[in-house]
Amino acid sequence: MAAPGAEDCGTTVDLRSDTVTRPTPQMYDRIASAPLGDDGLDGDPTALELESEAARLLGKEAALYVPSATMANLLAILAQAGRQEVVLAEAASHIYVTERGAAALTGSFYQPVDGVDGAMDLGLLAQALAPGRNKLRTGLVCLESSHNNAGGAVLPLSHMQAVFGAAKAAGASVHLDGARLMNAAVALGVPASGITAFADTVSLCLSKGLSAPMGAVLAGPAVTIQRARWHRKLLGGSQRQVGIAAAAGLVAITTMVGRLADDHANARRLAHGIGQLQGLSANLPQTNIVQVDVAASGHDAAWWEAELRKLGVLVRTWGRNRLRCVTHRHTGEPEIDTALKAFGIVAAQGGGVPPDECKTG
Amino acid sequence: MAAPGAEDCGTTVDLRSDTVTRPTPQMYDRIASAPLGDDGLDGDPTALELESEAARLLGKEAALYVPSATMANLLAILAQAGRQEVVLAEAASHIYVTERGAAALTGSFYQPVDGVDGAMDLGLLAQALAPGRNKLRTGLVCLESSHNNAGGAVLPLSHMQAVFGAAKAAGASVHLDGARLMNAAVALGVPASGITAFADTVSLCLSKGLSAPMGAVLAGPAVTIQRARWHRKLLGGSQRQVGIAAAAGLVAITTMVGRLADDHANARRLAHGIGQLQGLSANLPQTNIVQVDVAASGHDAAWWEAELRKLGVLVRTWGRNRLRCVTHRHTGEPEIDTALKAFGIVAAQGGGVPPDECKTG
Amino acid sequence: MAAPGAEDCGTTVDLRSDTVTRPTPQMYDRIASAPLGDDGLDGDPTALELESEAARLLGKEAALYVPSATMANLLAILAQAGRQEVVLAEAASHIYVTERGAAALTGSFYQPVDGVDGAMDLGLLAQALAPGRNKLRTGLVCLESSHNNAGGAVLPLSHMQAVFGAAKAAGASVHLDGARLMNAAVALGVPASGITAFADTVSLCLSKGLSAPMGAVLAGPAVTIQRARWHRKLLGGSQRQVGIAAAAGLVAITTMVGRLADDHANARRLAHGIGQLQGLSANLPQTNIVQVDVAASGHDAAWWEAELRKLGVLVRTWGRNRLRCVTHRHTGEPEIDTALKAFGIVAAQGGGVPPDECKTG
Amino acid sequence: MAAPGAEDCGTTVDLRSDTVTRPTPQMYDRIASAPLGDDGLDGDPTALELESEAARLLGKEAALYVPSATMANLLAILAQAGRQEVVLAEAASHIYVTERGAAALTGSFYQPVDGVDGAMDLGLLAQALAPGRNKLRTGLVCLESSHNNAGGAVLPLSHMQAVFGAAKAAGASVHLDGARLMNAAVALGVPASGITAFADTVSLCLSKGLSAPMGAVLAGPAVTIQRARWHRKLLGGSQRQVGIAAAAGLVAITTMVGRLADDHANARRLAHGIGQLQGLSANLPQTNIVQVDVAASGHDAAWWEAELRKLGVLVRTWGRNRLRCVTHRHTGEPEIDTALKAFGIVAAQGGGVPPDECKTG
Repeated sequence: MAAPGAEDCGTTVDLRSDTVTRPTPQMYDRIASAPLGDDGLDGDPTALELESEAARLLGKEAALYVPSATMANLLAILAQAGRQEVVLAEAASHIYVTERGAAALTGSFYQPVDGVDGAMDLGLLAQALAPGRNKLRTGLVCLESSHNNAGGAVLPLSHMQAVFGAAKAAGASVHLDGARLMNAAVALGVPASGITAFADTVSLCLSKGLSAPMGAVLAGPAVTIQRARWHRKLLGGSQRQVGIAAAAGLVAITTMVGRLADDHANARRLAHGIGQLQGLSANLPQTNIVQVDVAASGHDAAWWEAELRKLGVLVRTWGRNRLRCVTHRHTGEPEIDTALKAFGIVAAQGGGVPPDECKTG
Repeated sequence: MAAPGAEDCGTTVDLRSDTVTRPTPQMYDRIASAPLGDDGLDGDPTALELESEAARLLGKEAALYVPSATMANLLAILAQAGRQEVVLAEAASHIYVTERGAAALTGSFYQPVDGVDGAMDLGLLAQALAPGRNKLRTGLVCLESSHNNAGGAVLPLSHMQAVFGAAKAAGASVHLDGARLMNAAVALGVPASGITAFADTVSLCLSKGLSAPMGAVLAGPAVTIQRARWHRKLLGGSQRQVGIAAAAGLVAITTMVGRLADDHANARRLAHGIGQLQGLSANLPQTNIVQVDVAASGHDAAWWEAELRKLGVLVRTWGRNRLRCVTHRHTGEPEIDTALKAFGIVAAQGGGVPPDECKTG
Repeated sequence: MAAPGAEDCGTTVDLRSDTVTRPTPQMYDRIASAPLGDDGLDGDPTALELESEAARLLGKEAALYVPSATMANLLAILAQAGRQEVVLAEAASHIYVTERGAAALTGSFYQPVDGVDGAMDLGLLAQALAPGRNKLRTGLVCLESSHNNAGGAVLPLSHMQAVFGAAKAAGASVHLDGARLMNAAVALGVPASGITAFADTVSLCLSKGLSAPMGAVLAGPAVTIQRARWHRKLLGGSQRQVGIAAAAGLVAITTMVGRLADDHANARRLAHGIGQLQGLSANLPQTNIVQVDVAASGHDAAWWEAELRKLGVLVRTWGRNRLRCVTHRHTGEPEIDTALKAFGIVAAQGGGVPPDECKTG
Repeated sequence: MAAPGAEDCGTTVDLRSDTVTRPTPQMYDRIASAPLGDDGLDGDPTALELESEAARLLGKEAALYVPSATMANLLAILAQAGRQEVVLAEAASHIYVTERGAAALTGSFYQPVDGVDGAMDLGLLAQALAPGRNKLRTGLVCLESSHNNAGGAVLPLSHMQAVFGAAKAAGASVHLDGARLMNAAVALGVPASGITAFADTVSLCLSKGLSAPMGAVLAGPAVTIQRARWHRKLLGGSQRQVGIAAAAGLVAITTMVGRLADDHANARRLAHGIGQLQGLSANLPQTNIVQVDVAASGHDAAWWEAELRKLGVLVRTWGRNRLRCVTHRHTGEPEIDTALKAFGIVAAQGGGVPPDECKTG
């Protein structure tokens, strides 16, 4: 579907999210030919194959197909943290910041732990985990890698190991929000299982850079996944001939991982180019997310978003003075060049002028 | 997927549920060609079309695509009943009996109202709705038509009207669990909107007799559907290029309704044939569900299920002495005849002998 | 405090509830002299003594003082039933009918089991406890004896034993709502521990027939009571120099049990007298609750309540055609005679005349 | 009750909390003579009088007696914040840090806002209140004054006004956790209603410096208090002849407020004296709480607590390197001098020596 604003400039470069990726031809083929069954009765063979492949890929005993990464995270919490138990998460993590509404459904208490680049401060973590009089027990510690709000930063494995050790010593489980786990694996140059070794459960989104139209998996110990399966039914996440969706997921995890390196290269290209422009700065992307700081440009993020949109380049505001750009399968080198050109045009228009004047100009 | 036991008899007749129906060729075509978008950003055009079509079909302002009928019902409750408000449902209804686990997620109190053939006793309903000292307020009254546990019985429109009137007078909303709503509409010979007129919200399963591989819709007032959309995100029911699934749903609601009459005829044929057999009796099906009482056969339901399975006929036990058979697109006249033959063979084997003796025999 | 209407007839006879009982002189003495401490720090010695005495009396390892019987029941559920576990209770029990609002706080699912005279049907109980596909696990079964809505009926010990056995076999705990447990013990002529043997936990109200101004205890296994203590803090039921309240409770459980026999005799006297009047009938009270059926009197319960009130006799309506009268320390033989006289006067006024005519008369 | 350790040194000085205060003779007199009623039926006249007095004192339409300040806060949340709505509280506040377990009961999301001296950062507050895509609505903002974890700091009225204005502009209510509200009022030299003007609801603990044995009140708009009354019943916080407890509360709020100035003077005396000792430093107390930093003493808080206890002075550890001392009615000038002497003795013992050596010494 053409995004709004596309008509203004012929071709749209959509950097809003890697969730916009459309299914590949191979996915369509697999959808058309996948054997199907009733996942509420005998099991759907394609979903079972995906679950088996995902468990192997993620180095876990079992896996479960779910409609979305949000549900995968919610099930991880329901399966591993009890009523009135604490779920610790880095303060800027997606689970804490965006998915928190589900806390009311779980009866668990979501507590933030401040961090840097998505990595929780280990001293604060230790304090949070320490037992105390009238203190709630921590049931689950959540990690996120790559970390969305930290500009796609990848958690160092040593950090994950430290968190995992601290959590287990305190009797807590660890969940890895792996919405973009494969980006982290590619960035680190390790297999996914080298990362998931430091978590009891892990969610993996099939629908971001991996390009499946929908769906996610949750992997972990068989007994935990069994509990998650039960809760999935209860939430309404169990579906029937779900192989239709799982088929695309199978293609995603078996064929789409390697190409994420291109997205990372394109993100670096984009960040580098933006960094050359007056009034803008960007992170050095480890994966496929570029955060652009527009504070020095004299305009706020909303203005930038609107101006870029007029030129056919879609980005998202990420706070008052920040834009988020995400590279993916539909933003290759030419699209990055188009985007950079647009950034340049807008920077030339408004560079250095304070926002208030601009708005009257 | 071949069901277990299929190898024993060449062809399997699967009467366990209409959820086993596989997508039609037309659905595959639509899936392959449907325009897609990111339903979390601009909206997926195919999902939007399905939602628009469903709203029209169901006579409501707005509709929402969801992964399953269970989630549609859950969202109806979250959107219309508050914390510590009562959700009334007929005591044998699917929401009360099977989906109740979700009560813990809603903070609402699910209270059963005894009924006959799926229709709540109106006197008991009035008592339940009456205000009282230290009594919880009722936020939502749930109806189900056709009614699964009542053998596919269709609620009379006069009953629905009476419930709707009583609920609104008490300040409560009404939700219609329409997992098999189209079966009810076909049986009554009225458009679906003639039934949904007596409910604020209605869920419709796309994946039972209508044969879509997965998914459901929730329809109702725009403001309620907006709340449900918000809760869908929270539950993890929001998906991205969801048109892949919605495409099949569009085919389901636009082309598959009329043929449900065949399922009903086949159910009557099955029930009639079973009624001829010694030791068995069946309801007179209004829709596509046949309940077979095996109490007088000298064997319990589990024995029947196992014996029929050996002959390639799959049914489900429904309590100790009852079987449930559901007709659908894959059980035409020949399959019904096969099933009847199998019932006859098993009846001949075990007829009239008390279960205890049989088991030792 | 003089009850409303008292001025109409000099002396009021208050049969509305045994909760109206005022503290005894001995309770005031004990309150004035009880050693106190901070129950949130070192423990309050009087509360500790009450908890110790109550545990002994109820035959359990440990006990906990709480502000009310409602909180005792709620803590029993929080301590013994998990999120999405079922709490079974007889359909007319106080926990199910009146305290249900707390269900939203527990995340447990309250399911009613129909019964007779407060005793659950054992067949229905077995069905409810039986495991099943997609069925919630039962965490707790609740009993109530004496049973408020069953006219103060006492559960037969054989019934309690059967329920206890069935629950334990299914892996569920049993809680006894003993708001009026001592009435049951006196009626059965057994020590309280002879009843509580068939329950894991038991609540006991100190403030009904036992006449303490407030408070209740929950008794059970030490580990369960420890959990309840933790939840008590969380609910705001933990208090500081709580010996002020516990002192009266100590007097209640050590000196006030025996006299409940008088209340029972007075209830029988009242019921017998009422039974002589035209248009009225009453249960044969096992304990201190008389239910009066006014259906045949030509007037509804609200009319009777109002007419009796004019004569200084306070009762409560209990449904449309029923009154509830509860005997207690302030309703001795003279008050019962006064009440019977009032019933006689009202019966003479309105006996046999249909309600509608009366109201115009 | 003598506290543990008292026997070691003749007289104990208990600085652990002002919750240890015992009832005054006047309270005992009032308890003995207070008119009582059934608060579940006609109302208890003494509780009603307390509620009326408290409403007047706190400048609100209505008030409610509750068993504890914890329950008052919980009811304020249940009455003013909905399911999946945010409750904002300063990150070190009692509601956020200690009472958080109740979050699971409310279905609300407790979110911390960092602050200084108990006062939330207004910029962070504005961010938290700002609406956003997929962001939860804030239902309630909680203030605490005096602020326990901020060493009894009193919120400036200008801060409260700013928070109140920001909250109301965002459609949120404001609750003031006034566990020690009267200490704040005395410190500011304003009537309590001058503080509560910047909150919709306010809790007041009767059992800390005000010396009642137990209980608290929640005050606010009549309609909110009505909702809180309903929730109180549900939590088990409703009691019968509750005047026994309320009587002491009446004496507390009518006669005990003025003397809090003495506690404040004694706190300053204590802090000043401690500040003279090598290796120790203390806050300059605005009210009755002294926080002692022992980090420079070469010993941790647990060591100090144990050493002081041997000398009959009871304090509480408040983190690894901090002690909390609270002055109250039982710690007059002589007790403060005793405490200072003990601090001096312990400082002389261990001053300046690193903790590890001490422990082996």
